[in-house]
Amino acid sequence: MRSPIPVVLAGYGSVGRAFVSLLCEKSETLRSRYGLDLWLRAILKSDGGFISDSRNELESFRGRLGRGPAGARLWRPGLTLKLLLPTAKPGVLVECTSSDIRTGEPGLGHIRSALKAGWHVVTASKGPLVVDLNGLRQLARKKHLSLKYGAATAAALPTLDVGVYSLAGAEILSVEGILNGTTNYILTRMQHGAGYEEALREAREKGIAERNPTLDVEGWDTAVKLLLIANSVLGLNLTLRDIQVEGITRLPTRKAVAAREEGKALKLIGRISKSGLRYKAEVAPSILDRSHPLFGVDGASKGITFATDTMGTVTVTGGKSDPRGAAAALLKDIINIFAVSSN
Amino acid sequence: MRSPIPVVLAGYGSVGRAFVSLLCEKSETLRSRYGLDLWLRAILKSDGGFISDSRNELESFRGRLGRGPAGARLWRPGLTLKLLLPTAKPGVLVECTSSDIRTGEPGLGHIRSALKAGWHVVTASKGPLVVDLNGLRQLARKKHLSLKYGAATAAALPTLDVGVYSLAGAEILSVEGILNGTTNYILTRMQHGAGYEEALREAREKGIAERNPTLDVEGWDTAVKLLLIANSVLGLNLTLRDIQVEGITRLPTRKAVAAREEGKALKLIGRISKSGLRYKAEVAPSILDRSHPLFGVDGASKGITFATDTMGTVTVTGGKSDPRGAAAALLKDIINIFAVSSN
Repeated sequence: MRSPIPVVLAGYGSVGRAFVSLLCEKSETLRSRYGLDLWLRAILKSDGGFISDSRNELESFRGRLGRGPAGARLWRPGLTLKLLLPTAKPGVLVECTSSDIRTGEPGLGHIRSALKAGWHVVTASKGPLVVDLNGLRQLARKKHLSLKYGAATAAALPTLDVGVYSLAGAEILSVEGILNGTTNYILTRMQHGAGYEEALREAREKGIAERNPTLDVEGWDTAVKLLLIANSVLGLNLTLRDIQVEGITRLPTRKAVAAREEGKALKLIGRISKSGLRYKAEVAPSILDRSHPLFGVDGASKGITFATDTMGTVTVTGGKSDPRGAAAALLKDIINIFAVSSN
Repeated sequence: MRSPIPVVLAGYGSVGRAFVSLLCEKSETLRSRYGLDLWLRAILKSDGGFISDSRNELESFRGRLGRGPAGARLWRPGLTLKLLLPTAKPGVLVECTSSDIRTGEPGLGHIRSALKAGWHVVTASKGPLVVDLNGLRQLARKKHLSLKYGAATAAALPTLDVGVYSLAGAEILSVEGILNGTTNYILTRMQHGAGYEEALREAREKGIAERNPTLDVEGWDTAVKLLLIANSVLGLNLTLRDIQVEGITRLPTRKAVAAREEGKALKLIGRISKSGLRYKAEVAPSILDRSHPLFGVDGASKGITFATDTMGTVTVTGGKSDPRGAAAALLKDIINIFAVSSN
């Protein structure tokens, strides 16, 4: 068993809370299976943070720390990551703030500060990666640190693990993904005759769609994930402007129904393909034949398929995309930073 | 760029030849993308080996080295791994002999000698792993070396990568896999009315089935892969005797046809499930509903699905299972030993 690894969590929304809960639940597994002892030192919010010097104290609240007496005792108004970093032995920053997709903040500042201070980073925030993925990766490399972001690219669906690790050495000829659960749920319902508004309302009622689903239904969430996959797996240097994006808001129900009646499926596909020597990236509603590996990925499920030169086509589907799934992806990335696989 | 990494290949059958060819084809990618310079020092057969002290000489034959003049110049009768190891700087042993599944030899001796001499090992041979997986893993751990065997567990289908790496930290509740292309091809044809013998003949004609398909059709190839997955991903210590195995040789065509007519599929499934605190492992023909993640895995394709506590169900399908796919899996494992992922 190694000495305890300090963990700081930035962002205490649904994913952050699920992460704390999971850390408590999995502490025994982490120790026995991976020889890992993670110590949650602090939880940062926008106006301060909870901090504890006792082992397992923050974890023990299982994501339910509030402003009650217990929370008040641990609460430090105005505590920020920049104030905290110089005082702590380096470990892992878990970045879960809801960061702006144009500025990347506040996550971008968090990640840069943490890497500069010698901390590994795992992030569920997409904003910082959209704004400066390659800069952050360079910084991590320079400092011999890990920056992992599986939780930002379809959570528990291992898009990057499969693309980077399982397909190492293969040339990836194309990537196609159903990367957004909300739009896939809506399209699945529309194939059975529901109107767009009706299907969206259902998705909201089931907790699949967020209150403001604009980024999802207009294709931008898919585009962001596609961008991160393209730049990580294919080593490209795309920005969002390089991706042609069409969402599902203007699709008539009859088109979805017709697809199903012809034995096909209508899906919002993020796609990277090679035309000549250049890669082309786009997000667009697409008709899939029954033989397509993503044909059967229905409802709020997701999936991705890689066509390669040497390993054939490899497809991965499923993976929970709720906060618990995202938290599990963060924990998986932490484990893989420290517990180098022995097989 | 690091200094060249010596590679010794044991076994020069279809997978070994494909590996040499791939090594030649991918040398530029290995250098530029992974900073890896692999140097094929020797190719061992049962009665001797080809050896070269010149860079890129063995690779340049692209798996076509024979007993012609070029081959004769490089051929050393009686050369064995044990004779070779003490004379060479440690690197990676690529084990591709067709090893006996009961004794594990000759691969078992190769892998033990290599690990003891400080060499990493990647293997496509299943025999040594069936006989002594846990012993070999312990030896590798003790020597701080890697032992990787993705090529032995469904080749380019990343069963172990997903189970061990992408699902790290999750508890795996069950595993189901279509792990053998020959039987899946036969069953797919039988669903459309072909008799067992007719479908097997077709599979042979297409180069899918081996000349002696007994281990495939009686379920033992599936059982072996399931064993390796169970012991690696779930940390079990099963032997083949712990797996209840039923093949497809006695299935009537009408059962396969009936499954299809009811909108279902008949598959040979390797399955690990938890009953109480114990895991149960079995191989048996099984009827899958349309909603099963492996329902659409037809023909010679393979797939595996993991049900977990925190990450939902993750399914991976596809991946070439021909010699080139197996060679690509060996190369992938080598890359992942040396090029620790930077993201």
